[in-house]
Amino acid sequence: MQDIIIRNARREDCPRLLELVRELAVYEKAPNEVTVTLEHFTASGFGEKPVWWAFVASVPQPGNSDERMIAGFALYYIRYSTWKGQTMYLEDILVTESLRGQGIGQRLFDRLLEEAREKGFKRVTWQVLDWNEPAINFYKRQGARLDPEWLNATIDL
Amino acid sequence: MQDIIIRNARREDCPRLLELVRELAVYEKAPNEVTVTLEHFTASGFGEKPVWWAFVASVPQPGNSDERMIAGFALYYIRYSTWKGQTMYLEDILVTESLRGQGIGQRLFDRLLEEAREKGFKRVTWQVLDWNEPAINFYKRQGARLDPEWLNATIDL
Repeated sequence: MQDIIIRNARREDCPRLLELVRELAVYEKAPNEVTVTLEHFTASGFGEKPVWWAFVASVPQPGNSDERMIAGFALYYIRYSTWKGQTMYLEDILVTESLRGQGIGQRLFDRLLEEAREKGFKRVTWQVLDWNEPAINFYKRQGARLDPEWLNATIDL
Repeated sequence: MQDIIIRNARREDCPRLLELVRELAVYEKAPNEVTVTLEHFTASGFGEKPVWWAFVASVPQPGNSDERMIAGFALYYIRYSTWKGQTMYLEDILVTESLRGQGIGQRLFDRLLEEAREKGFKRVTWQVLDWNEPAINFYKRQGARLDPEWLNATIDL
């Protein structure tokens, strides 16, 4: 696809972003895990102290090219590593299912790395499910190292 | 051990904390991964905008009980989950090798969960190496869920 615009997410994108967050959770077989509300999500990204940032991919709407739609997004936050200092953590990257395979994810990922370099981060980290082969192959093409040695641990309060 | 004081880390604890961070990195077989400087570490925790917080365990110095020493620490930051909102991320927890097995780690962990509840976090997450059996057993006793399905991905810039 030629006409892909990658831009910073805006407050008014939040309903669509949360829709895509839910699409990703369904894909990751955890649809009931998304308990965040639109209000809290919006306030966390666009309130006084933002704790996440995102890029969106805007493309012409299929069947109505006068209108544009958000086909995908990449959302990150800043984490603190006692080894490396501040690093970029890619929380989510998704292209909606019907628009995959057209280079949109690559454009989002490129923009993310550009941002990380501009902001002076020395490392970008994220996680991928071990059965998500399309994503794993995509990340390997980006030059990512994948490490199965670390287990996630969780306590819900 | 009876005389364990758990308290918030202070700026002047940072040199000792970084020593313990390095001890942990050696244990995790990644001694060269710690590239953060004391200056940056201190500024990140005690500058204008702290990005990490920690508790320390202060105990009598073996052989000189008039003096106290920091035997261990638990360091966390706040992460943003698109599923759960802000959650507590336990970056490091360590008791120095010679003082393990005396309940210090349990006291640190209890304090961490108490803090998470006080601050209203609904979830605490962290990671553990799949071969680190003492830690895995400790976390299971705390009621943690361990999940091997997620792989860590990294790009160094």
